[in-house]
Amino acid sequence: MLEALKAAVCAANLELAARGVVIYTWGNVSGIDREKGLVVIKPSGVDYDGMKPEDMVVVDLESGKTAEGKWNPSSDTKTHLELYRRYPEIGGITHTHSVNAVAFAQAGLDIPALGTTHADYFYGAVPCTRSLTQAEVEADYELNTGKVIAETLDQRGISPLAVPGIVVRNHGPFTWGKDPAASVYHAVVLDTVAEMTLKTLLLNPQAEMPQYILDKHYMRKHGPNAYYGQSK
Amino acid sequence: MLEALKAAVCAANLELAARGVVIYTWGNVSGIDREKGLVVIKPSGVDYDGMKPEDMVVVDLESGKTAEGKWNPSSDTKTHLELYRRYPEIGGITHTHSVNAVAFAQAGLDIPALGTTHADYFYGAVPCTRSLTQAEVEADYELNTGKVIAETLDQRGISPLAVPGIVVRNHGPFTWGKDPAASVYHAVVLDTVAEMTLKTLLLNPQAEMPQYILDKHYMRKHGPNAYYGQSK
Amino acid sequence: MLEALKAAVCAANLELAARGVVIYTWGNVSGIDREKGLVVIKPSGVDYDGMKPEDMVVVDLESGKTAEGKWNPSSDTKTHLELYRRYPEIGGITHTHSVNAVAFAQAGLDIPALGTTHADYFYGAVPCTRSLTQAEVEADYELNTGKVIAETLDQRGISPLAVPGIVVRNHGPFTWGKDPAASVYHAVVLDTVAEMTLKTLLLNPQAEMPQYILDKHYMRKHGPNAYYGQSK
Amino acid sequence: MLEALKAAVCAANLELAARGVVIYTWGNVSGIDREKGLVVIKPSGVDYDGMKPEDMVVVDLESGKTAEGKWNPSSDTKTHLELYRRYPEIGGITHTHSVNAVAFAQAGLDIPALGTTHADYFYGAVPCTRSLTQAEVEADYELNTGKVIAETLDQRGISPLAVPGIVVRNHGPFTWGKDPAASVYHAVVLDTVAEMTLKTLLLNPQAEMPQYILDKHYMRKHGPNAYYGQSK
Repeated sequence: MLEALKAAVCAANLELAARGVVIYTWGNVSGIDREKGLVVIKPSGVDYDGMKPEDMVVVDLESGKTAEGKWNPSSDTKTHLELYRRYPEIGGITHTHSVNAVAFAQAGLDIPALGTTHADYFYGAVPCTRSLTQAEVEADYELNTGKVIAETLDQRGISPLAVPGIVVRNHGPFTWGKDPAASVYHAVVLDTVAEMTLKTLLLNPQAEMPQYILDKHYMRKHGPNAYYGQSK
Repeated sequence: MLEALKAAVCAANLELAARGVVIYTWGNVSGIDREKGLVVIKPSGVDYDGMKPEDMVVVDLESGKTAEGKWNPSSDTKTHLELYRRYPEIGGITHTHSVNAVAFAQAGLDIPALGTTHADYFYGAVPCTRSLTQAEVEADYELNTGKVIAETLDQRGISPLAVPGIVVRNHGPFTWGKDPAASVYHAVVLDTVAEMTLKTLLLNPQAEMPQYILDKHYMRKHGPNAYYGQSK
Repeated sequence: MLEALKAAVCAANLELAARGVVIYTWGNVSGIDREKGLVVIKPSGVDYDGMKPEDMVVVDLESGKTAEGKWNPSSDTKTHLELYRRYPEIGGITHTHSVNAVAFAQAGLDIPALGTTHADYFYGAVPCTRSLTQAEVEADYELNTGKVIAETLDQRGISPLAVPGIVVRNHGPFTWGKDPAASVYHAVVLDTVAEMTLKTLLLNPQAEMPQYILDKHYMRKHGPNAYYGQSK
Repeated sequence: MLEALKAAVCAANLELAARGVVIYTWGNVSGIDREKGLVVIKPSGVDYDGMKPEDMVVVDLESGKTAEGKWNPSSDTKTHLELYRRYPEIGGITHTHSVNAVAFAQAGLDIPALGTTHADYFYGAVPCTRSLTQAEVEADYELNTGKVIAETLDQRGISPLAVPGIVVRNHGPFTWGKDPAASVYHAVVLDTVAEMTLKTLLLNPQAEMPQYILDKHYMRKHGPNAYYGQSK
């Protein structure tokens, strides 16, 4: 079942490795079929070499149970499911341990919006979550990771489509988008932006960008009067 | 029309990706036919994979209207046109979001001339522009970006051929040259020089270079008695 | 003799170069046949290009004498042998001069556990040894390097399988695992983690990770109730 | 004439590009035939793509005049010649603008010996020269660059074979060896060591290495009782 979605999720996982944001089995991409309430996700701990669409695992959005597949789903599956349940507007999710985004996660710092590269994709700082509590970690770590992501977005009043990514403290980035490929695209952009921002802060720890430049760049690509790219 | 220039502009855009200074659709290169008053530029938001000369867009230098082409021109077209109008001596322009040059743009800092690699191409610091004002951003952002670049060069008394590049504050580098390929060459050199300079400043924030070394290296390649390379 | 182990050790050495953690002849991988008491190791100063299984050298675990092979064994052989003698639980050892791990070795600093990437493989900080004394260097440098590694693990109460790597002060990383391939895998992970940690400390010198997150990530992959990956 | 040396010099120049320490026409390698008193060097400003042995230029060691070749020799030729005249023990010289070594040159700092990677090739700090004076630059820049390199080695009592490289202030590295290939090898090693050292100093500005470790590593590869590699 869901052959097209499995192919898209598999291709998106392979793209992660091809773009150099993951090594070995690090990282995972999923996609959702909203009508059927089913999520397709990478198997856990399986190498990218030779990965095929039929290796993808189908999981039920509500119960989290495997609906089809010969492998265990990614150990981060519950995080993905929580985000899909909270945000009906997203269709794909990516998790990586890309070096530059991880550096901000480990430093416990937001990735501030310091330039137009950032503003073209993320409408404001990419937040860093709080640490999970010991109780949250011990009770249901991956589910609570999803809850803390949502808590962070909610507390800051951030729409997930306006800021399609976050860094989880001491862990790493999660990104999302309208489909699996878009979530991978945001993962690659986020790591590049994180590298730019890190280097900027080394040169000038007080660097900042006026709000109206953030507004302009985000809106020329994503606003109602967007004029970047080709008309759809 | 302008088939040779389209081929040159397309090749220059592909060279940007091959040299690793752009990913996805980031960056754009243009070239000008001064006799016809027409500029050839990359289409907006189109991926580098499979890009062909016939995908290039021909735009009128004065009016900015599309003269030929099936795509919208780069969203940065008005910046390119303003620079071509101001500086008749330039024949190609490149814009990228290359990581190291962007770091200086985001930090709001000139790239100082600290070594002979820099001096071989840029006769003095590569300037960082001021921020555009809110009024400039809202009125005509891309046109005003070109105006602020020219204002910066003018205020500092810089000839665009002596310093064939600049970083726009909070945004990124623009470079230029006698033709599209030369502008790409300068984009690659600028990012490499920016990486060297960033690392130099991490080792020694007070680093500097005597003016006479800057003079010597620039002049041995570009002065009236230049002796680098082969006689033309 | 030991044809399968020679093939595995040769492949592991080539993997080091393919993963970009060594250049030229830097680095070496070995593997052990515990029943026969023989260690297979890379020859000294031989380039990776064209290296074949028959170039590997077989050395006696106790005496250190060459049992088979046309080349001298790696100059670091005595370090490998000492670790195999001390730790019966390890089956492969890798030594590299990978840039980021070396930076910590040269700085004389442990690589602290600041994130889950680290915690997935190393249960706590990757230690940096003390410097060898002049007497230790002059008496039997490579043997004493092994002894200082073991001294460091012992003094800190670290099991070599819980923290499968170390950095030797002013020198570089040694990693190990159940077989040669696992030791190379840990060498690649260690350098990536070192890069993440270095960048984290540049952003926030006070960065740290709660112990319970370290516990959780290490245990979900390696504990008795591990649930990462596929059931064996 | 000198066909074998031309082939070796051409191959060494191509190796520079393949190892990623030069882009475009940056960098140059030469080799010397001591019996004939002739130096073979890369032509000036010629791209690496398609470079052939017959493009190399033959120059007289004493007069500096071109003895054979259709191109102008590298603009840095006089620097190479001065070093060959001063140091009969060297057979090949390489100059690059590799990023990490340039960072130290621009910072005006020696590359201190902080680890065994450095000690395996350079017996002590890689020195940074003083700046050339304005008179030296204006009188005969490239010749005086060679003289300042030799002055630095002489003042510090350094044998060029013990420390086969230097960084020229505000410029970049020169390395040398017994033949062209060895000088390229040292150029690649020097940039890698410079990257390690820069990262080490970011982690610990007080990092240092005991003299006896420097002695040990240098001597086990280069001393009278060297035991690294295979017996010759």
